[in-house]
Amino acid sequence: MRSGGSRLITLLTDFGLQDSYVGVMKGVIAAINPTVKIVDLTHQIPPQDVLAARFNLMNAVPFFPAGTVHVAVVDPGVGSERRAIALQTSRTLLVGPDNGLFCGVLEQEPVLRVVELTNLRYWRTPNPSTTFQGRDIFAPVGAYLASGLPLKELGRTIDPDTLLRLPLPSCQQQGNGLIGCIQYIDGFGNLITNIPATLVAHPVWTVRIGSFRLPRQPTYSAVSQDALVALVGSHGWVEVAMNGGNAQAKLGVVIGEPIYIDFGH
Amino acid sequence: MRSGGSRLITLLTDFGLQDSYVGVMKGVIAAINPTVKIVDLTHQIPPQDVLAARFNLMNAVPFFPAGTVHVAVVDPGVGSERRAIALQTSRTLLVGPDNGLFCGVLEQEPVLRVVELTNLRYWRTPNPSTTFQGRDIFAPVGAYLASGLPLKELGRTIDPDTLLRLPLPSCQQQGNGLIGCIQYIDGFGNLITNIPATLVAHPVWTVRIGSFRLPRQPTYSAVSQDALVALVGSHGWVEVAMNGGNAQAKLGVVIGEPIYIDFGH
Amino acid sequence: MRSGGSRLITLLTDFGLQDSYVGVMKGVIAAINPTVKIVDLTHQIPPQDVLAARFNLMNAVPFFPAGTVHVAVVDPGVGSERRAIALQTSRTLLVGPDNGLFCGVLEQEPVLRVVELTNLRYWRTPNPSTTFQGRDIFAPVGAYLASGLPLKELGRTIDPDTLLRLPLPSCQQQGNGLIGCIQYIDGFGNLITNIPATLVAHPVWTVRIGSFRLPRQPTYSAVSQDALVALVGSHGWVEVAMNGGNAQAKLGVVIGEPIYIDFGH
Repeated sequence: MRSGGSRLITLLTDFGLQDSYVGVMKGVIAAINPTVKIVDLTHQIPPQDVLAARFNLMNAVPFFPAGTVHVAVVDPGVGSERRAIALQTSRTLLVGPDNGLFCGVLEQEPVLRVVELTNLRYWRTPNPSTTFQGRDIFAPVGAYLASGLPLKELGRTIDPDTLLRLPLPSCQQQGNGLIGCIQYIDGFGNLITNIPATLVAHPVWTVRIGSFRLPRQPTYSAVSQDALVALVGSHGWVEVAMNGGNAQAKLGVVIGEPIYIDFGH
Repeated sequence: MRSGGSRLITLLTDFGLQDSYVGVMKGVIAAINPTVKIVDLTHQIPPQDVLAARFNLMNAVPFFPAGTVHVAVVDPGVGSERRAIALQTSRTLLVGPDNGLFCGVLEQEPVLRVVELTNLRYWRTPNPSTTFQGRDIFAPVGAYLASGLPLKELGRTIDPDTLLRLPLPSCQQQGNGLIGCIQYIDGFGNLITNIPATLVAHPVWTVRIGSFRLPRQPTYSAVSQDALVALVGSHGWVEVAMNGGNAQAKLGVVIGEPIYIDFGH
Repeated sequence: MRSGGSRLITLLTDFGLQDSYVGVMKGVIAAINPTVKIVDLTHQIPPQDVLAARFNLMNAVPFFPAGTVHVAVVDPGVGSERRAIALQTSRTLLVGPDNGLFCGVLEQEPVLRVVELTNLRYWRTPNPSTTFQGRDIFAPVGAYLASGLPLKELGRTIDPDTLLRLPLPSCQQQGNGLIGCIQYIDGFGNLITNIPATLVAHPVWTVRIGSFRLPRQPTYSAVSQDALVALVGSHGWVEVAMNGGNAQAKLGVVIGEPIYIDFGH
């Protein structure tokens, strides 16, 4: 923790921005520690889409200062038997439901300790809502962690091997190339694959998607307006986009759709 | 006020997030007091929907620290004869137009003093815009209050009984049950009624809405995916939702639609 | 710069709020200087719409404290030869691509110095993404400026006359009146023209748009519900709106559409 200060908290939810749900979580945090700074990652994860939440967390967490507390609430099982957890990794702290949200982050940062949030003392109330535990459990626990409370105070330590995992779909070698799939489609309609930059270090490669063959380019504007383009995107994955347009709308593809890489000319 | 610090300001508007209107209000606040922390409640209140604003304020204000300044600008009468006001309640400060926005909060926290914002010294300019008083009157007044200015400096004290009220629709007893209505529909399509948890302490009850009979459940996931579910929601009201889906889209209902509670089996 | 403190940073982008792109920029800033305060202007500029970005910046920057750092990333040419720049004006600092984004602000505040962002030391990495320079160049440069780094450290000084300009369309005199056009349509559907308040100081004037003749009014609610209304809007331009409704939806107009002013009765 920064000497004399509070850690940063980030929030990621599927609560949307129409209602005051996110604002209420910030009120709960401020009521515990008014000096904590809060950053929104996004609140427009599609409702209950744990995979989209995993992707956004995995791609955002590494850019925050060490010691940041990331509170993520995409929680289809709220109020059921799913566990509420907090995790200490090698560089950060994570708080949310045990439903696989964090397993993308955990592929990047080894987990050091996991606790189940069983200590009611750090909840907003011993009788939390069964439908809004972001307010009653996750936000207050995040606020206490950001104030310096040791993780182990929050509940009983559990075995990291018991965490629910949603493994990333992996890409495979196939002939002189690779087969992968679309793992995420962003708000611009860019198609982000599960093929990492490290696997396309070959100087020349082409993406095949549907009936299109797209030679690798350095950036969006290397092709003409409204043309499709393949490149290594900012997340570090092979990406298919449309210069000045929306690749998803053009191609009509969905998450999981296969994408091929051919090496060489 | 916290010793040595500034109070928190929250903002609630119907300005949306497409334009920089909300950002401009934050600039005005920072120009008066750069140390004030600002939290967004929501800026996506449907345009000029004072009832939705009232609901969101009423459900958010209690979760913020005592002394927080809540600035709310949903203001169909901007520039007309409606009064601009600031209120001190037993635990918080409210700033906005006198159009009923705050009457949900005032049912929870007694009002101690109300002033009409007649002192031009605390406006951004003595010639405020007739269409954006959030920028020229409400944001600067909020910033001065958050900096410790006493409420009475802001203008002439007025009689709380003269405030415009938009009373909450009340629910009624009917036979061995209750009749209420939908008072709000949130961004998930959850139907929030005006039947408070305190009136459904009976161990067994069923909601009737349209042709559906929904026995009370502990949480969303107590029913199967895409089934309707009745429960006590996080706001403290009886709520009808769809597990993993959108109850409003399923039922085609609107605000004001009647909902019945039957007690017993 | 405020003694002992950090400057404020504002962010304006077309990244939307669905993904964590904006959150990542805030993480990068916090990793450089955790004390910097960040305000969102808007992240819902229509994709790659530099003119909408220019309008929103021009209308927001004057309301922020002197010394604020405004980082704007609407950047159709990301990764191409367009320059990345930072500007010092008479009262503020601007960071973004050299594509005309800032020329509205520069009509209000003379530019004192411009640098091209060539000093890799202040980038997040010497190998920035070709598709997300908001993260790798503009956010870190903004964080260093907000921490007090002198502008000239960021790269080589360039001639302000070489900046790309997108001049505002000007309005013209025509008979006993003016001809202008719609320069922006806000989220309420209000039509904001390029006719400044200073040119309509005449006591009586009427707007002609399509087949409508709209006498000047003091505020929206001076006309009946759902009627069109002409007035001087909060941005300081003649504006056409619908009281309680959406003028764009009613009139079906687009940016650039001509609007006429007739003086006198």
